[in-house]
Amino acid sequence: MTAAGATRRPDHGAAARSDAIRRYAAARAHTHALTQPLSAEDQLVQSMPDVSPTKWHLAHTSWFFETFLLAPSLPGYRPFHELYGFLYNSYYEAVGPRWSRPERGLLSRPSLDEVLAYRRHVDDGMAKLVATTPADRWSELLPLIELGLHHEQQHQELILMDIKHVLSLNPLSPAYLDTPAAAPAEAAPPVQWLLFDGGLVEIGHEAQGFSFDNEGPRHRVWLEPFQLASRLSTCGEYLAFIQDGGYRRPEFWLSEGWATVQREGWQAPLYWREDDIDAFRLFTLHGERALDPAEPVAHLSFYEAAAFAAWSGRRLPTEAEWETAAAKPVSSVSARAFHPRPAAPISGLQQISDELWQWTASAYGPYPRYRPASGAIGEYNGKFMSGQMVLRGGCVATPEGHTRPTYRNFFPPAARWAFSGVRLADDA
Amino acid sequence: MTAAGATRRPDHGAAARSDAIRRYAAARAHTHALTQPLSAEDQLVQSMPDVSPTKWHLAHTSWFFETFLLAPSLPGYRPFHELYGFLYNSYYEAVGPRWSRPERGLLSRPSLDEVLAYRRHVDDGMAKLVATTPADRWSELLPLIELGLHHEQQHQELILMDIKHVLSLNPLSPAYLDTPAAAPAEAAPPVQWLLFDGGLVEIGHEAQGFSFDNEGPRHRVWLEPFQLASRLSTCGEYLAFIQDGGYRRPEFWLSEGWATVQREGWQAPLYWREDDIDAFRLFTLHGERALDPAEPVAHLSFYEAAAFAAWSGRRLPTEAEWETAAAKPVSSVSARAFHPRPAAPISGLQQISDELWQWTASAYGPYPRYRPASGAIGEYNGKFMSGQMVLRGGCVATPEGHTRPTYRNFFPPAARWAFSGVRLADDA
Amino acid sequence: MTAAGATRRPDHGAAARSDAIRRYAAARAHTHALTQPLSAEDQLVQSMPDVSPTKWHLAHTSWFFETFLLAPSLPGYRPFHELYGFLYNSYYEAVGPRWSRPERGLLSRPSLDEVLAYRRHVDDGMAKLVATTPADRWSELLPLIELGLHHEQQHQELILMDIKHVLSLNPLSPAYLDTPAAAPAEAAPPVQWLLFDGGLVEIGHEAQGFSFDNEGPRHRVWLEPFQLASRLSTCGEYLAFIQDGGYRRPEFWLSEGWATVQREGWQAPLYWREDDIDAFRLFTLHGERALDPAEPVAHLSFYEAAAFAAWSGRRLPTEAEWETAAAKPVSSVSARAFHPRPAAPISGLQQISDELWQWTASAYGPYPRYRPASGAIGEYNGKFMSGQMVLRGGCVATPEGHTRPTYRNFFPPAARWAFSGVRLADDA
Amino acid sequence: MTAAGATRRPDHGAAARSDAIRRYAAARAHTHALTQPLSAEDQLVQSMPDVSPTKWHLAHTSWFFETFLLAPSLPGYRPFHELYGFLYNSYYEAVGPRWSRPERGLLSRPSLDEVLAYRRHVDDGMAKLVATTPADRWSELLPLIELGLHHEQQHQELILMDIKHVLSLNPLSPAYLDTPAAAPAEAAPPVQWLLFDGGLVEIGHEAQGFSFDNEGPRHRVWLEPFQLASRLSTCGEYLAFIQDGGYRRPEFWLSEGWATVQREGWQAPLYWREDDIDAFRLFTLHGERALDPAEPVAHLSFYEAAAFAAWSGRRLPTEAEWETAAAKPVSSVSARAFHPRPAAPISGLQQISDELWQWTASAYGPYPRYRPASGAIGEYNGKFMSGQMVLRGGCVATPEGHTRPTYRNFFPPAARWAFSGVRLADDA
Repeated sequence: MTAAGATRRPDHGAAARSDAIRRYAAARAHTHALTQPLSAEDQLVQSMPDVSPTKWHLAHTSWFFETFLLAPSLPGYRPFHELYGFLYNSYYEAVGPRWSRPERGLLSRPSLDEVLAYRRHVDDGMAKLVATTPADRWSELLPLIELGLHHEQQHQELILMDIKHVLSLNPLSPAYLDTPAAAPAEAAPPVQWLLFDGGLVEIGHEAQGFSFDNEGPRHRVWLEPFQLASRLSTCGEYLAFIQDGGYRRPEFWLSEGWATVQREGWQAPLYWREDDIDAFRLFTLHGERALDPAEPVAHLSFYEAAAFAAWSGRRLPTEAEWETAAAKPVSSVSARAFHPRPAAPISGLQQISDELWQWTASAYGPYPRYRPASGAIGEYNGKFMSGQMVLRGGCVATPEGHTRPTYRNFFPPAARWAFSGVRLADDA
Repeated sequence: MTAAGATRRPDHGAAARSDAIRRYAAARAHTHALTQPLSAEDQLVQSMPDVSPTKWHLAHTSWFFETFLLAPSLPGYRPFHELYGFLYNSYYEAVGPRWSRPERGLLSRPSLDEVLAYRRHVDDGMAKLVATTPADRWSELLPLIELGLHHEQQHQELILMDIKHVLSLNPLSPAYLDTPAAAPAEAAPPVQWLLFDGGLVEIGHEAQGFSFDNEGPRHRVWLEPFQLASRLSTCGEYLAFIQDGGYRRPEFWLSEGWATVQREGWQAPLYWREDDIDAFRLFTLHGERALDPAEPVAHLSFYEAAAFAAWSGRRLPTEAEWETAAAKPVSSVSARAFHPRPAAPISGLQQISDELWQWTASAYGPYPRYRPASGAIGEYNGKFMSGQMVLRGGCVATPEGHTRPTYRNFFPPAARWAFSGVRLADDA
Repeated sequence: MTAAGATRRPDHGAAARSDAIRRYAAARAHTHALTQPLSAEDQLVQSMPDVSPTKWHLAHTSWFFETFLLAPSLPGYRPFHELYGFLYNSYYEAVGPRWSRPERGLLSRPSLDEVLAYRRHVDDGMAKLVATTPADRWSELLPLIELGLHHEQQHQELILMDIKHVLSLNPLSPAYLDTPAAAPAEAAPPVQWLLFDGGLVEIGHEAQGFSFDNEGPRHRVWLEPFQLASRLSTCGEYLAFIQDGGYRRPEFWLSEGWATVQREGWQAPLYWREDDIDAFRLFTLHGERALDPAEPVAHLSFYEAAAFAAWSGRRLPTEAEWETAAAKPVSSVSARAFHPRPAAPISGLQQISDELWQWTASAYGPYPRYRPASGAIGEYNGKFMSGQMVLRGGCVATPEGHTRPTYRNFFPPAARWAFSGVRLADDA
Repeated sequence: MTAAGATRRPDHGAAARSDAIRRYAAARAHTHALTQPLSAEDQLVQSMPDVSPTKWHLAHTSWFFETFLLAPSLPGYRPFHELYGFLYNSYYEAVGPRWSRPERGLLSRPSLDEVLAYRRHVDDGMAKLVATTPADRWSELLPLIELGLHHEQQHQELILMDIKHVLSLNPLSPAYLDTPAAAPAEAAPPVQWLLFDGGLVEIGHEAQGFSFDNEGPRHRVWLEPFQLASRLSTCGEYLAFIQDGGYRRPEFWLSEGWATVQREGWQAPLYWREDDIDAFRLFTLHGERALDPAEPVAHLSFYEAAAFAAWSGRRLPTEAEWETAAAKPVSSVSARAFHPRPAAPISGLQQISDELWQWTASAYGPYPRYRPASGAIGEYNGKFMSGQMVLRGGCVATPEGHTRPTYRNFFPPAARWAFSGVRLADDA
């Protein structure tokens, strides 16, 4: 991806540099803070091929700065270890071969301590790079630094998604955080159906400020009038779907979804655990507890989201509909949490970016006239534009300031370990 | 799917009925004719789970008429055999359980003779149904008859695709037809790049005449100006891609495509057979012969089509672009063949629907306000709207009169056994 | 394998030749007769990788004579088709590459008619070979002809085993033969426990008459005193094991057997079909019918045989015990059938070789000083001496005159599609 | 398994108890000592389903004492944790359900510290049990304590085998021990072929002192005269097999072995790493180093051992031959190592139990009149008596005093991660 907007910044003086290094330090410290509740053992486990060990995230985000900034741009920089380029490259074919993804959990060495030393080594390099880069190269560098920071933030979210899966498989049901999740809410407020005119609208990023390359170019789209639910669908609403035979009735499902339900034996969203008849418990980053019907239903696949929408007599929004509705930033709940919270008893659109990513009806593909950057960085987003569905919004695991209304998240339709939920839509 | 347009026909008198039965007889006879070069043994083989035996197609198309027309609408109709409903249901969950798809090749019984008797039994029933249905029910019936005929035509194409795959795996390389394919052409004419303005256009079926439900509703779409190649890409052009390392250079490929290339060991399109260095032979329904550089490249996956486009510095068209360009019917080559022919040395858009289906950049999904029909017929198209890519046009195996500019064909992105090719597009 | 005994025959005159050609013709005709109830379609189906199509057996047995006799020894012999050597080699690495075993069912071509012509071509060649081989080479040839005949007989048994599996998977439950199986018996006679002294005994073939190489050399074995059941275990006895929770109680099972039961979901022997609670029906070559408690239990894996023996408080015999007991030929039931029959109300050892192969406790390995023949023929038996268990006796599908007390049949421990049963043994 | 001999010990007084507790403490301390070179991260990794994490071994061996001694026999004993019975049961069906074997590597919790506390808890319990068990129950207990100690020793060997596999997969090639392996030897001494008369011999354990149940009962076996190699086959000899095309020539291989070679792409023993043409390096517990032609070839599967023997014109010994030859204890090399050492230039049988386990030609099955113990302990050995081959001897990872000439080790024929080698045999 590229960060077209960023390149416009005229300021490459001391202020810009100290701002960059401050933001860098904050992002890196936040990553580190997220690992504090975890032992070195916890940070090594890979519970399925899609999940990466926490330790791997710590190293890979450092590799990103080393590979795309320090190695090419810091004179005299020495890579921390000759094999780390091989070990911590995620998927960049242009950079070279790499360690097999499903075997990241085998790497007891490098130890966590060595990886933390790697992080410090890279941090030192980055400080030096920011301080010493000649003024005439600063404007080339800043977009890559920004990209590295947003990349770091993406992995902050992945660390939480992934460790939730790791801990969920442990028969001891360990909590990531011992603090209890917020107190159960009153009943969720009823859904309001908000009307939108559609017509010839523009979507996509405007090239002001940072964005990933897949968010642009901004372009026109024709939309029929539509409606959008004011809030996310709740566990209580999803429970009604289950109780109405949702997982046993093929008429609600896409063919691939139904095949997945049969093959995987799905009977409820990921992390729901059946206790007695009709009584579910929920595994959260705060441990296992009773299901709260008022909270947004989370950890659904696209298939489940679409089947639930069909059962509801509604549909999922397209990404253009979603973005049009969410274009005006919606004020978000301030306190951070690690689990989605019930909707508030207020009017208008809410739960846009603080609770759960929202599956859309849109397959992930290129916008008109989109071209990936050349070189390895071009692999960031573009090569994944098949077989995945777009999610919009943001979630409890998304670091503050990371998401935007134009942000295009994407996952394969069967993925359930992301913090994913449903907002219903309908024709007007 | 439904046939909205068909329901408008006011004529339910003798002419309409004799027209219906004439078209029915012709379609059924054409299916039968396609099987004539094949032995009962040939008609039993299932070479991979996606392929169905010819005999199964013969039975399933009869089951379609029996299930959706005869059983519900012909008083006193007796199903030919109590188990055929189970054996020959393809994927209709609402109709009931069915024989496992990958095991269709195990069914030596019913014999081909019994299946042909089944066809005659259904044909007799259909003749009676058309002759005896009361006038007030005729307008309900006709759309289903039309659907059944178009369904029969789809399976005529599948019979040819499938038997090509079956025969290709046989070490004896048997030909479906002994007649030679058309004589090798002169060099293909150069591609002309045709310009289109785009803007706010309408696509989708207008509800005049038959269409499948997924072709509508007609709706507005905004298009940026674009260009389209006047003809399909050729084997010669594709060979240049191969010779330039196309199958070894990840930079041209979608991530899923590259993984597929590695896993499957792809080095050329399906049915290309390497002889010596740089010399390929081609398996066709007319047997194996030398590759003709002038003929359209066929039997590509979407991944290969997209990689070839990227290598060409172009892209695939979206389905809206394709339909806009092809909206005015293009006169097609008259003589039918079983293998795609080189482009003609003429000006303007050609090879729209007679040679090969053309992969588009569009994931297969619902048009705005699309709703599948209720009941089993609603499963015809709607439930496949995930994980597949749209192809447009038609091919040498498509029966005459079956396709339209609004026709949306679809296959999974890794599928190669369809008669699929590439037409390049570009931004204007 | 070799046929050591056969090489001693001094007679290579006209009588020996006419005897050879008479036996050849009879064996070949019997194979052909077995296929008469089957259509060309039936003869093409491969229901699992272990099963071969009937048509393949017809061709492979001809290939055996062509490859090991006609090609090397009949001057001027022309192979019927240049590709048949590739298509019909089963597993002889020394002969060259071969068509993939699990894909034998794809070969609609060569057609059945072509395969039958191949058989006639080989038969003609064999007649010529027997008639024209010079006297000084006859003694080399005869053992190979004998081997080819015994090989043909082995495939006669395989044809029946394999087609039973093919037909059993067909939802129409077709019978191989419409004639009913023998009338249900009275209750089976009680088991007599026959005592054997053991001591230092000899087992293995004596080198008089034909044997497969794995039956020798004859050698000494020390046996502790043991007992053997006079008859095979019955369906009624096995039903008691099932009803006592046999398939749900791990204490009776070998670890690999228990894993197989879990993985495959076994709840009864192959071809048992549960009707109601405690009521089983049985699929046989004569079609499906009620289970007869008096008949021998058939189509068990070694794991099931061993678990049943453990549940019975007994054990399986070793092959040395079995052979010692069966050394004196036991008179067999004369009428041939295609399904095992209940024991007779007589005294002494019975059901030795006419009903079912009997799993032993012995892993299949080489006898002391066993050496396989050199060349391709050495692959006949020797290379399978790991991972399989020995079965002794013979079965309803074994052609008359084919088996001997020293005969060592072998199958992997999970195989169930052979006509396999249980005879219990115990320490004395 | 049972320890028949042990039950005969008359002494249950203070000396016996202090002897027991001393041996218990020594065994447990030795296990702990083996883990000292490893981090908590190292001890968590499971590199394949057959391998268990070191931490799991630490816990499981404690579970064994808890389950079979403390829980039933120590009044008032409280299990350390209610879930550990589920987590650390290996394969005892009679004890109850258990955590999935291939997922042992997911258990970051319990932490290593918690597992070490579990060990101490069990150690305290065992001390109390030995001290307080009434005299009349001591003779029941002692055999179970002995069994627990021998079980602990088996896992000491497994810890080394398993961690070798774990470390070998790490691209950093970490050494378990930094100390160098012994200095390369002179050339290995030539093999002497030692002659044995055979005849009616006895093998199996005599019931004096401890043995596993599968070593008895002692029984008679008839042996033909045979020869045995005085030492193990070397890397140099095995290299000659490789260089002669050993892995490309099917004529040396069992059919299952050849299929495994193809499927797995084997070209050399496990842990051999090709450097240049004909130059191999070896991964050892002391790190990677050049291959020493004089050292015994290790980490072979049974298939490779058998193919090498066939190529050598020899064969593998049966277990009865091996035991007869090794019956008189052979003095072993005193210094312990973690890698097999070259043979010494001495006369007579050597390398019996200190270097490598030796594959035999014998499938692992029950001796005549063997009956497993009743209850869960009966699962120790008996249920594995199918699908495995016997190895005899002992290896560098076997703790001192653990092995005996009657000891029957066993592994599936494709297993290579044990310290397994080859001693050739031949007919006399």
